[in-house]
Amino acid sequence: MGVLSSTIEAIKPLDQGAMAGARARQDVLTKPQGSLGRLEELAIQLAGIQGRSLPEVKHRAVITMAGDHGVVGEGVGNWPQEVTTQMVDNFLQGGAAINVLAGHVGARIVVVDIGVAAELDSNRQLVSRKVAPGTRNMTLGPAMTFEQAVTAVETGIEILSTEAARGLDIVATGDMGIGNTTASSAICAVITGKPVAAVTGRGTGIDDQQLAHKIAVIEKALDVNRPDREQPLDVLAKVGGFEIGGLAGVMLAAAARRIPVVIDGFISGAAALIACGLSPGLSDFLIAGHVSAESGHRLLLHYLGLKPLLDLEMRLGEGTGAALGIFLSEASVRILNEMATFTEAGVSEKSE
Amino acid sequence: MGVLSSTIEAIKPLDQGAMAGARARQDVLTKPQGSLGRLEELAIQLAGIQGRSLPEVKHRAVITMAGDHGVVGEGVGNWPQEVTTQMVDNFLQGGAAINVLAGHVGARIVVVDIGVAAELDSNRQLVSRKVAPGTRNMTLGPAMTFEQAVTAVETGIEILSTEAARGLDIVATGDMGIGNTTASSAICAVITGKPVAAVTGRGTGIDDQQLAHKIAVIEKALDVNRPDREQPLDVLAKVGGFEIGGLAGVMLAAAARRIPVVIDGFISGAAALIACGLSPGLSDFLIAGHVSAESGHRLLLHYLGLKPLLDLEMRLGEGTGAALGIFLSEASVRILNEMATFTEAGVSEKSE
Repeated sequence: MGVLSSTIEAIKPLDQGAMAGARARQDVLTKPQGSLGRLEELAIQLAGIQGRSLPEVKHRAVITMAGDHGVVGEGVGNWPQEVTTQMVDNFLQGGAAINVLAGHVGARIVVVDIGVAAELDSNRQLVSRKVAPGTRNMTLGPAMTFEQAVTAVETGIEILSTEAARGLDIVATGDMGIGNTTASSAICAVITGKPVAAVTGRGTGIDDQQLAHKIAVIEKALDVNRPDREQPLDVLAKVGGFEIGGLAGVMLAAAARRIPVVIDGFISGAAALIACGLSPGLSDFLIAGHVSAESGHRLLLHYLGLKPLLDLEMRLGEGTGAALGIFLSEASVRILNEMATFTEAGVSEKSE
Repeated sequence: MGVLSSTIEAIKPLDQGAMAGARARQDVLTKPQGSLGRLEELAIQLAGIQGRSLPEVKHRAVITMAGDHGVVGEGVGNWPQEVTTQMVDNFLQGGAAINVLAGHVGARIVVVDIGVAAELDSNRQLVSRKVAPGTRNMTLGPAMTFEQAVTAVETGIEILSTEAARGLDIVATGDMGIGNTTASSAICAVITGKPVAAVTGRGTGIDDQQLAHKIAVIEKALDVNRPDREQPLDVLAKVGGFEIGGLAGVMLAAAARRIPVVIDGFISGAAALIACGLSPGLSDFLIAGHVSAESGHRLLLHYLGLKPLLDLEMRLGEGTGAALGIFLSEASVRILNEMATFTEAGVSEKSE
């Protein structure tokens, strides 16, 4: 666990000096103080993360990790497992929603096979880091071994490190994996302590009867495995997924390098629960791109103390909501860097 | 009233055929149906407005109108009136928040002097269409004459027409005018029928005592003028502002030309109340960029039947929230135009 523990150790608090500098500048820009609301707060948070009072978000990436889930054998959804593979191909061809939105916000996409249950065609744009071809069915025992859980997280750490070496000022997390809302609900129930029914939703669109079945499947998995909520890697191993572990690693490594992380929806949120369990200070480095329509996500964000930037009833995953958060982050940074001050513009200040 | 009435007459319903085409395409793109939530709905609305199932938002503009308000003589805020002029200069120099955000979303800015209470330096980037050098103090009588109200709206119509001739696929509205939340609250109280206190906020940042005074000033203005809520131009003349009338004209002319309008905060909202009073079908052509932190705005949007895209506690005006709405509109359109279909990508569809 060398890489993982050294990464966790490298995570330091936000830079209060940089935040004070950013806040002081906000207050002399030509606008009533505080009138840009959360865009002002966001720029100050980015300053604290990056450790400079004028943050930058020039180099941007969306890291989308794909993995399969043995629990689909229990009939928790209504899309066939091969869709994971097909969608990875779609990402590589540029036809998916995340391709469009990443392009729209000027972010490169990093597509990772961390656990897809099929041999993918070799493609130089695919990062092939398969821990195993899908998890096992968690209703019959652990989804993965403890060692695989550590490997998944460390894989995420390594991928983030590679991307940082290419230049990275902000990163967004995304996921693909048929069945992964089931694993995410299981993680969310364990770590937040809420009933399974309160954190389980319709995923890609199941009906009432299927939802009741999905809840029963998750309850069975928790009963069979008894994950220890105090041990995030135990939770990940027993009821998680490879892409969830990988994304947790991305978050940890980004925080260790003072790179802000825009998290996407429910699956990225489950990864954040694991990552924040391993390093409670991590949540300061996270920006919730949006709140998903998947029930449980709002509760999950509240548990993490994160307030979403957007609420557009999206529930696609892939990193789509997080990509939009990159745009707002850039907007906030440009405001801070580019606006004129009262003195520069010769504008009178408010009388008291 | 030739220009105004012919503009109102030219506003037709949304194109249902184009909307059906856009909806049908949403349902075959490689994502679970409806999983992009409001981005899907937004693209369908844009299709209906533009009358084509694949809408475009290539040419974008923010029209920011500036005007002064005689009611500032009553001490309703704590910024001096000359800030209106200074901020117009700031817009022309590129130092204001709207310059940064319009640039960020690839929109040109059109800065209009429709009623600033000072002679502005001549600048070829300024559209000089001053109806009068500020409104009169509405606590002493009408803010403007009925003829001036018509002129303000028709000025907005003409400006939009000029911009349309330059190429315009989407337009955002913005405002600048010290004192204009006071006029907007007055309009909002009259048209929605809500108490003044329910629709009056702190504008650029006043304290409790100043807020009570501001409410009393608005109540006095309504008592002195008795605007007729059934006559939007009477409301505009008695308690409105030139920039509010101008923005109402922009909205009407845009709808007549099937150009979507992203409206900004409380002042644009007051303009929308006037414009929708003149043409009830207009609201279908409006997109609420955000809900402002100014109290009354949420209620105003609800009255218009509009659901804001963003809720970032912004309260600056200028068109800043609307500019961000242009970005989301473009995102929605790019999704619709650029994503692959299930067939194109060879992705299996959901089993039933």
